[in-house]
Parts: sequence; C-alpha cells; structure tokens
Amino acid sequence: MRVADLIRQKREGAEITPEQINFLIDGYTRREIPDYQISALLMAIVWRGMTHSEIAALTDAMLRSGRTLDLSDLPGKKVDKHSTGGVGDKTSLIIAPIVAAGGLVVPMISGRGLGHTGGTLDKLESIPGFNVNLSLADFRCVLGKCGCALIGATDEIAPADKKIYALRDVTATVESPALICASIMSKKLAEGIDALVLDVKTGSGAFLKSEKEAVGLAELMVETGKRMGKRVVALITDMDQPLGRAAGNAMEVVESIEILNGKGPADLRELCLELSAWMFYLGERVASVDEARRLAADQITSGHAKEKFREIIRLQGGDDGVVDHPERLTKAQYTAEVTSPANGYAQITDCEKLGLACIALGAGRNTKEDAIDPAVGLVFHRKRGDAVRQGEVLCTIHYNSPERLDDARRLIAASFQITREAPTPRPLVRRVIGAPGASA
Amino acid sequence: MRVADLIRQKREGAEITPEQINFLIDGYTRREIPDYQISALLMAIVWRGMTHSEIAALTDAMLRSGRTLDLSDLPGKKVDKHSTGGVGDKTSLIIAPIVAAGGLVVPMISGRGLGHTGGTLDKLESIPGFNVNLSLADFRCVLGKCGCALIGATDEIAPADKKIYALRDVTATVESPALICASIMSKKLAEGIDALVLDVKTGSGAFLKSEKEAVGLAELMVETGKRMGKRVVALITDMDQPLGRAAGNAMEVVESIEILNGKGPADLRELCLELSAWMFYLGERVASVDEARRLAADQITSGHAKEKFREIIRLQGGDDGVVDHPERLTKAQYTAEVTSPANGYAQITDCEKLGLACIALGAGRNTKEDAIDPAVGLVFHRKRGDAVRQGEVLCTIHYNSPERLDDARRLIAASFQITREAPTPRPLVRRVIGAPGASA
Repeated sequence: MRVADLIRQKREGAEITPEQINFLIDGYTRREIPDYQISALLMAIVWRGMTHSEIAALTDAMLRSGRTLDLSDLPGKKVDKHSTGGVGDKTSLIIAPIVAAGGLVVPMISGRGLGHTGGTLDKLESIPGFNVNLSLADFRCVLGKCGCALIGATDEIAPADKKIYALRDVTATVESPALICASIMSKKLAEGIDALVLDVKTGSGAFLKSEKEAVGLAELMVETGKRMGKRVVALITDMDQPLGRAAGNAMEVVESIEILNGKGPADLRELCLELSAWMFYLGERVASVDEARRLAADQITSGHAKEKFREIIRLQGGDDGVVDHPERLTKAQYTAEVTSPANGYAQITDCEKLGLACIALGAGRNTKEDAIDPAVGLVFHRKRGDAVRQGEVLCTIHYNSPERLDDARRLIAASFQITREAPTPRPLVRRVIGAPGASA
Repeated sequence: MRVADLIRQKREGAEITPEQINFLIDGYTRREIPDYQISALLMAIVWRGMTHSEIAALTDAMLRSGRTLDLSDLPGKKVDKHSTGGVGDKTSLIIAPIVAAGGLVVPMISGRGLGHTGGTLDKLESIPGFNVNLSLADFRCVLGKCGCALIGATDEIAPADKKIYALRDVTATVESPALICASIMSKKLAEGIDALVLDVKTGSGAFLKSEKEAVGLAELMVETGKRMGKRVVALITDMDQPLGRAAGNAMEVVESIEILNGKGPADLRELCLELSAWMFYLGERVASVDEARRLAADQITSGHAKEKFREIIRLQGGDDGVVDHPERLTKAQYTAEVTSPANGYAQITDCEKLGLACIALGAGRNTKEDAIDPAVGLVFHRKRGDAVRQGEVLCTIHYNSPERLDDARRLIAASFQITREAPTPRPLVRRVIGAPGASA
C-alpha cells in the first residue's frame, strides 16, 4: 500500500477500506508515516467526508492505537456522558455522582477548556488537592471503591487521536464532522463502557451553531457507537445561553453543590436529571426513561448523590469539606456589574462571547501553556426572557486582574440585548437522537 | 499571520492575497513553515482551485524564491518553449537550434523524463560528453556565444517549486491545474525570457488526456504569463500517438538530426516549424506568423539550424561529430518486432502504454534513482491511419535486456488496434490559445 495512493483515493471521493485505515493509523502512530501525508489526507477528509463504515474503522483504529480499559470485573453496567462543550456546562460534576449513587459505574475521562468553552478537569482542580492525573491503575481502583472517577486522558488512551488532534489544530482540519466523531468516540469507547449519552450542544455558545450541524454530528456518533456494539443516545440541547447562572471554575463547583443540595438553577437541574435518566436507562438500571428520571431525582432528594460527590473528592485526594462549606473555595478579589441599558426583556445574542469573556478574565487559556485562574468568572442575573429594568444588573464579573476587566465587560455588553417583546421560550432539550425504538 | 488561518481561508474557498502567498512561500523556503501545513494547504488548493490573481502571485513568489536570470545585456529577444510532455517529443532538440539560428536567444532550462514521458536532458545526454549541468554562469556564457543553451534546473532556480513539487508528489496533490501552472511558469519565467511558447499536449499519451483539461491549463498559463508581463501563446497539440517515428533517447537524437537535414517524419517537422514560427513571431523577429513559418523552414534548408546544433553540442562539451555521423550514437544490442494481427488500418488506442513500454526497456526511470539506458527504444512503422497487412511490422523494439522484452511487447500490442475502416484524420495542432488579436 502506498500512502499517496490512499490519499488520492480519498481525494477522489472513494471509500477507504478498514484495512487501509488501519495501515494509515498504525503507521502514523509508529511514526512510519510522516505528518505531511496525514495532514493532506485530513484535508481530503474535510473535503470529501467519510462514510459510516470509514468513521467506524477510523474510530476503531484510533482506540486500538493505545490501551483500552476492560472493566468487566467490576459489577454493574459502565456508562458515561460526553458533552460537545459550552458555557457554564458543569453537568459532569453533578451527573457522575448521581449515576454512581444510583448503582452504575461511571468511568469518566474528561477534557480541559477548549476555545471559548470550559472543561471538567479545570473545574475539578479548583477543589484543593483534587487530582485528575490518576494512572489507569489508580483510576480503576477508585472506580472499584465508589463506582465513579473523573480523570484526564492519559498518553495510554488513544495516542493516535492525540497526534491527529494536534495536527488538525495547526492545519485547519478541525471542522470535519467525521473527524470530530472519530476523535470523541475513540476516546470514550477506550473507557470500556457499555453505553454512552451524548450531549450535543447547539446555538451561539456551541461549536456547532446550527441545529442541523449538531444533529448531523449526533447521528454520526450514534451510528458509530452502534457499529461498535454500544448503546448510544444523543440529546441535542440548547447552548444559545449559558447553562445555570455561573461560568468560571470554582463558581461552577459551588453551583454544582447547590444542585446536589436540591437547589440551584432550574435549567441546570433539568438537564442533569435528563442526562442522568438516559444513562440509567441505557445502563439498564430501570425499564423506562420516566422511571429513570425519578431514580435520578431520588439521588438528589435522598442526599446520596451529594454523599457520592464527597466520596469521589476524598478518593481523588481532594478536600471533601468543600461539599458542606463551598465558601472554602477560592474567590476573586473584585466584582463589577454589567447593567441593563433599558427596560425590557433580556436576550443573549452571542453566547460564545460570554465564554470568551471568561477566557479574558483568566478562567480559560489562550494558549496551551497558559495557567488558569480558578476564582474568576461570571454570574448571570438575567437570562433569556427575563424581564429587566434599566440599571438592573445583568451579570456580575468576578475578577482578579483589573487590566482584564474592560475586555470582559465589552464582550458581555455585546452579547446581551434588551428587547421590548419577550422572546419565544425554547426547549432545553431540542431532540433525542438514537432513542431505542426510534430511528437514529 | 497564522498559517492555520490561511489554510482555513483557502479551505473555505476564499482568495489568498499576494501578501499572504508571499508569507507562505517565503516561510516554507526558509523552513519556518513545516511540510505538514503546506501539504494541507496544497490539498485545499486541489479542492478549491486558485484565481488568476492567486496563481500569478504564487508563480511570482516561487520564481523569487531563488535566482532569476537577467539576460538584458545579450542582444535580441529571449524566447523559450515548454512542452507538457509526451511520447517521442524531441522538438526541443530541433527548435532550439532553429530559433537561435534565426537570430533569437533561447535560454532553455529543461527537464528529465517524468512518468511515461521522455525528457530533453536524458536525450541530450545520449550525445557523448554533452554536459547539461552547467552553472548559471556557464549557461550565460554559452548563450552569449551561440544564442542557445540547454541545461537542467539548478538548485538556484525556484527552490520553492522544487520543495513543493517533492511534497506534491507524495501527498497526491500533483493534479491541480493551478499548481501545475505555477510550477511550470515560475521555472520558465526565472529564465529571464521575453516570450514563451507552450506546447500543451492532449490525448492518450499526454498527462492531460482530455482537450478540455489541456485548454484549461493552457488558458491558465497564458493568463499567468500575461500578468507577469510576458508574451505567451499555447498550442494545443495531438498526443494521441507518438510524435515522429522514434521513442528512446539516442534514437530521438538521430531523428532530430534527420529533421535538421530536411528529412525525417512529416508530423515532427510540421510541429517543430509551427512552434519555431510562434517563437519567432512572439520574439518580434518577423511581423506575421506566416513569415515566421518561412523563416523557420529557411533555417533548415540553409543548413544554419544544423550548424547551430553542432555549435551547441561543442560548447556544452559534447561530440559534435554525431551531427554528421549519427551512427556513432549508442545502439541497442537486439531488436524484436511487433507485427499486425490482421489486415486493416492502424489505430493507437493508448499512447501512454507506448511510453510505459520505453520505461520498461530502460529508456526512462521507475524511481528517481534509476539509471537510464540511452540506446533502447521503439521505432513505429505504422501510425494512426496507416494501412497494414497481417504480419507486417507495426513497431520495432530496440532492447538490451531480454528479460524486459515481454513487458514492452505486451504494452505495445495492447496500445495498437487494427480496424477495418481508416480512422478520421485529426489535426496535429488543435488550437492556439492566447494568439495576439484573439481572446485567450
């Protein structure tokens, strides 16, 4: 097999066989195929797309490029959730304890902030002592003890994906549904799970702004998961505005604890219960999604989910006292307010800018090497459709570096709009793709 | 400027500015931009194409990546010819002396065999002693003495094109009209010429099989040349069958000398006179193409072109005695014949296979490192439309390695077809693109 011939094949829109895909991924992982051939291939894939069969083969080749977890010795089904990323999305911190408390195993390998979105690992690290860098052996050990663990991807998991992702980042080949799908699914399926719930965000705060793109990616991922023998469902959910009221690492941990205490914002609670319910259902813990919703809510009401969160923090080396005393978490030195310029109803026209405002404050990274400030972030007092009077607060900025305030303020002001009419409410969960019984 | 942003821009079909193209080519030549970014960009170019303005900017950036010749101190217009390559195309060996004998300067930087096609340098090197590896200083010196010199591209000429071409070869990004155009034109325009005649081959023995593709490339090259301030014309010429009767390095030198002696095959003579005429006309040696045709023919009749060929050979270190004694050139040890299987008319259905038969015999290279055998090749006794009886010779194979004979014989037999009806004759010169007064 000549690499150039395979690139030509894809360039001309022909399908590449699983055997050929294996040859390419294997050769690239072993450094026998150079970056410059793979980057040309990636651009040809952006151009021509990939068939379901090609995506499944690519996912399989990438997940087999490293270690895959075999958790079959642990009792219970293993389920996970993956979100495509948004602003204020702290659902993993809430869902993992709910689902583990409800009797399933949740081996969650998470990511860091990317672009304008936050990352679960960055949020967890705002808890003093919390160690997300467990070895796979320690990960398995924590999973065995409490049914849940949250770590970052190690070099052992899907190294081909790591190499390819780094190459895509510098060759403008990130935006391919096929490549995004294979990248996500190879990492998730390496976790040794039985089922996966995907939270595919759509709207101005998501990577895929249009619902059509989100549905397209969701369908690819559901199909790929099925071809790999897993139960997979995707929820298309709203990211036209931040989820909950807080965005910023420590502040999102505080809000997550509020939810586990049965309080907190309704939209965040609703999405956490919905995602948890689908995990319970796909993990065959209950016989219907409705029953699964009740099981999820019970974990909060009973306090079991909160107790599970405490246990996870303790087992991963963190200060579990923060669950009862969230005030121990780091706080920003200063606050500033963005107020409404008029009477009317709040609209958020560009949610991505709110994520960028967090980055500007230091809650995320501009380059891979940047350190993040866990204390800073935003609190939203008005969300879509809320009535507001001129001068009332829309958003509070929590900051440490006064020189960063102006950028953040400008981005926030530009993303809010005050209208005379209340905007039409939109459902939080727009669609469910791949629900058993329905066609994907 | 971020390279990834420029790749994205091209990927989305937007135009890249001349400044951005300079940044890319300059950075790549200096090794500041890695191969893997340029190969992704090249694939995006194959996908999206380039505008005339982009191609001109790319051509300009590549030619300025190295030295450009300034021949303004030599009296007379400087003109050159470039062919896109074919089987039996030895026109450069004939045209260069004709046009130099007619009073213009011909600074010809030529290539070697590529794919199934022959190369001028390989043909010249079958003349004992002939040195195609002159420095640019020696090239200029020979040009000053006899008005013509034929050399290979040095590392000083368009090094960016050399790097990019090597990368295209291994990343399946060769087949882009925009990139082909910029590659050819950057090398030719670095020669310091005033005018250029392009011989764009079309048919089963050409790289661009369809006339539509050939015309498309010709139009791009003519437009690019004009934008760079040069007089450029492209002839779309037939390559559905070999040009002349001989294919193979030394055998093509013999046939070239026949033409310079006023003999040789009619099609080869016709194309040489036509190309020379356009060079005389664009070089403003005469006022009309008709007059130019007479001037070209006169160089043969008078013996001046033959004398010029002798002079070129002598000045480039070769044995000029071969012009009067072509039998001194190396000859193959053995011959074999391919005969007609039936009575009828000869048809050549796949001229590329005849080129591949030459490669199989050793007249060309399978890999860059292969040595070539100057003696071997083919002589065609029947060409398109010639009547033939069963058992009569279609082609004589001149070979040195008996183990290579079968491959060549099979390829030749597969490219000839004997039909009951004579095929419709086709003109040798199909179209002229960019002729002054006509629209390009």
